[in-house]
Amino acid sequence: MEGGILSNGSKGKELPSAKEIEEGTLFWPRFDRSSLLPCVTVDARTGRVLMVAYMNREALERTLRTRRATFFSRSRQALWVKGETSGCYLDVVEVLVDCDQDALLVKVIPRKEEDLCHTGRSSCFYRRVVGEEEFWLEHV
Amino acid sequence: MEGGILSNGSKGKELPSAKEIEEGTLFWPRFDRSSLLPCVTVDARTGRVLMVAYMNREALERTLRTRRATFFSRSRQALWVKGETSGCYLDVVEVLVDCDQDALLVKVIPRKEEDLCHTGRSSCFYRRVVGEEEFWLEHV
Repeated sequence: MEGGILSNGSKGKELPSAKEIEEGTLFWPRFDRSSLLPCVTVDARTGRVLMVAYMNREALERTLRTRRATFFSRSRQALWVKGETSGCYLDVVEVLVDCDQDALLVKVIPRKEEDLCHTGRSSCFYRRVVGEEEFWLEHV
Repeated sequence: MEGGILSNGSKGKELPSAKEIEEGTLFWPRFDRSSLLPCVTVDARTGRVLMVAYMNREALERTLRTRRATFFSRSRQALWVKGETSGCYLDVVEVLVDCDQDALLVKVIPRKEEDLCHTGRSSCFYRRVVGEEEFWLEHV
């Protein structure tokens, strides 16, 4: 795991303890083997889950500094300012981190809700899994 | 990407088109290079985000068949029935999949809300990132 250069206190610091990571105030994001963190994006006003994407360290720093959600596209292997194509920029209201600091929850206000998903929907989660023995999708 | 043996229609079927994956009713979960899918777990009653975890194919099939959330622990490299230690089992109300079928949204009712997180909290997201140049955590 990479260390947490995002927190001042972590510079040159040894790997924090599990307790520090879980209970402390040190921001020490634990990127995965691909140097990515999964990010759940929700609408800050309603709490609705909009999408799941990934950030590398640079995307995370840009998101925090510009307050505009920036991800890392795994398919394109490049930084991706959400909305740069569709106009649906995501204004960041709040970023939360989970207990072991390997996932983020990003609360946003989308600029063009109808274009949140590239399929032209207001959330990427528009189908539920149905079935008992075999499983299919149903539009919600 | 592995194919979608979870859907009857996919047996022996060629890789579906992007349009089929995004708009169709075929459940064709696209596991990552580690054979995992990220799963956002939310409280079915409030929509609150509780945790992020991963499922491999077996965890997903068990979750769908037993309606009890089962994940794959990356640290232990083993199936993990959420709640088997804490008693905070997650009863699954609904499972949604995203546009490109590489992330899940699992709506649950936790049996023991106060033990959702192993730190003894009702959500794993209990700290926000604060700061402008350097970043720290603050308990919410």
